Amino acid sequence: MYDTAGQVIRCRAAVAWEAGKPLVVEEVEVAPPQANEVRIKILFTSLCHTDVYFWEAKGQNPLFPRIYGHEAGGIVESVGEGVTDLKAGDHVLPVFMGECKDCAHCKSEESNMCDLLRINTDRGVMLSDGKSRFSIKGKPIYHFVGTSTFSEYTVVHVGCVAKINPSAPLDKVCLLSCGISTGLGATLNVAKPKRGSTVAVFGLGAVGLAAAEGARLSGASRIIGVDLNSSKFEEAKKFGVTEFVNPKEHKKPVQEVIAELTNGGVDRSIECTGSVEAMISAFECVHDGWGVAVLVGVPHKEAVFKTHPVNFLAERTLKGTFYGNYKPRTDIPSVVEKYMNKELELEKFITHEVPFSEINKAFEYMVKGEGLRCLIHMEE
Amino acid sequence: MYDTAGQVIRCRAAVAWEAGKPLVVEEVEVAPPQANEVRIKILFTSLCHTDVYFWEAKGQNPLFPRIYGHEAGGIVESVGEGVTDLKAGDHVLPVFMGECKDCAHCKSEESNMCDLLRINTDRGVMLSDGKSRFSIKGKPIYHFVGTSTFSEYTVVHVGCVAKINPSAPLDKVCLLSCGISTGLGATLNVAKPKRGSTVAVFGLGAVGLAAAEGARLSGASRIIGVDLNSSKFEEAKKFGVTEFVNPKEHKKPVQEVIAELTNGGVDRSIECTGSVEAMISAFECVHDGWGVAVLVGVPHKEAVFKTHPVNFLAERTLKGTFYGNYKPRTDIPSVVEKYMNKELELEKFITHEVPFSEINKAFEYMVKGEGLRCLIHMEE
Repeated sequence: MYDTAGQVIRCRAAVAWEAGKPLVVEEVEVAPPQANEVRIKILFTSLCHTDVYFWEAKGQNPLFPRIYGHEAGGIVESVGEGVTDLKAGDHVLPVFMGECKDCAHCKSEESNMCDLLRINTDRGVMLSDGKSRFSIKGKPIYHFVGTSTFSEYTVVHVGCVAKINPSAPLDKVCLLSCGISTGLGATLNVAKPKRGSTVAVFGLGAVGLAAAEGARLSGASRIIGVDLNSSKFEEAKKFGVTEFVNPKEHKKPVQEVIAELTNGGVDRSIECTGSVEAMISAFECVHDGWGVAVLVGVPHKEAVFKTHPVNFLAERTLKGTFYGNYKPRTDIPSVVEKYMNKELELEKFITHEVPFSEINKAFEYMVKGEGLRCLIHMEE
Repeated sequence: MYDTAGQVIRCRAAVAWEAGKPLVVEEVEVAPPQANEVRIKILFTSLCHTDVYFWEAKGQNPLFPRIYGHEAGGIVESVGEGVTDLKAGDHVLPVFMGECKDCAHCKSEESNMCDLLRINTDRGVMLSDGKSRFSIKGKPIYHFVGTSTFSEYTVVHVGCVAKINPSAPLDKVCLLSCGISTGLGATLNVAKPKRGSTVAVFGLGAVGLAAAEGARLSGASRIIGVDLNSSKFEEAKKFGVTEFVNPKEHKKPVQEVIAELTNGGVDRSIECTGSVEAMISAFECVHDGWGVAVLVGVPHKEAVFKTHPVNFLAERTLKGTFYGNYKPRTDIPSVVEKYMNKELELEKFITHEVPFSEINKAFEYMVKGEGLRCLIHMEE
């Protein structure tokens, strides 16, 4: 037990006061966890596109002031009533997708889309009482996707907390809270390429490269990276990408280019951009008879996926996934073990590091498209 | 050996001289089988929509005079050079999808889309020499999908012949040559519902009812039949359909009606109409997290499948299949055994029977939408 248990904690948090404006590191009050909640001391967090997307709030419901952040690692400070499988001192990753272990999705072998704790980007309060646990001088500050990790302490529903091996370095495995697991799981859990397969990955950001890393772990013989920015290829080689196609450099649709390169199409493709054109290409570039395409990238609200149905009848499969089909509490501890066993490499995703006081630099890198992940050290 | 081996056989065949005009039963000459070909005495054949579709030749390449027919059972009369796994007297089903056993598709566990013997509706001749084996007074008559079973004798590539249990009644198992296997396999091999699942079947013709039969064999707890013609429901009950939805009787899209009936969607759906609207509904009516939709019906050339990609990201799967993913030579003998074991019921699909001389009646029943399968007896 920490002596702060049951008390309001005053600590630093990076507050977004307005859409698109730099965050301000402020002193906030963090209330104690209520029933089925956990208060976590965050040690490392990193910035993901989704934070930037909702911070920019272009076309999204604006909800401010708000504390963003959902990729992080920390240590349980205290737990609320009814929490039995976590205790102060446990090493954990907060995750934006929860697992209640009780609904049809949690009981399904296939789904991770928990009915109770499914991601909700519009909700800025805790599920139990509809209130925020953050405030500044009594004025509530909104949560983000139930995690709000841009704070030295945060309160999270117990179903959104993965308890991990305490010897795992939190400054590396914190990446498994979102993007890396999303890409890795899309390959390992959904696309499931066999050893020797050909795999195309659309989009060579962190999620796409994690999908490529999954293909590398699966023993794919060829991993074709597709991106509109050719400068990404050199970096992508570290993640097992063996070939590169830039659709802008071809007159033909990229699906035809890939079909020609691979004698009719790849065995698996994984779409990590969110562009609906890329989704269509990713589907149409898989081989007839056995090809499987997996959609990961989140599309715009008005996007429409279109294809000739004969592309399906020729025995192609199209699936989508969220968070790589991982159940956070059940599955993420074993992904941490993949890192501990040196199967999975995480270091290469961390291209920048900043102290918490310079968190706005992380936003600048991402907005400019520089690097993959910027690790934010909460302790300076 | 039959004493006709190596000889031209004169026999009756139903010749389509012109698009949409009644077939004429004529005396034709059937040449002996060449290398890798088999000449089969057809005993029973039945009429499938695909025959009617190409006979009507609306928007298809017209190819006349032609002998249609691709659902049939018969006995091998003689074999050509190089045919080692079939001999005169074997009981067989000719199949429009071949299996060369040598290409990447035949070697794949998943695909049945043989590169060499994939269905080709435009080709009216044999693969080896580009010639027809049928003629009338020396003038060639075209083949149809490599089977042309509306003839007392036909010549088929050995890769398109399934050798079956000789004690199986050919007047029943001949249905497994096309439609029934297509629907049954879509469920058993592709949708794969678990025991207790909910399954929706779009289109309650022979293929859809065979898909329902597959759901029944799989132990589905609810089988929801969807059809624009409510008069089909009574018959559908024999095939295990437990509930019926007629989209015309609802103001909401049928996918919403089904989602309400099933607490969020069915576990599996199978589309057997070929209408692109039905395909979209069939996809969108499956449950998020684990739902799988399978497309079977063949769409129009200009059809476009459209959906919001978030429907995929919510962990739905869409697949297509051809001939129920069955490999004809490898798999169809075991489907015949399912009938022999009384697992699979075939009698209920046969709603009409005619002698060969009245084959045009079978076309009339199908054009009017009457019944499921009309069995044509070659021997009168």
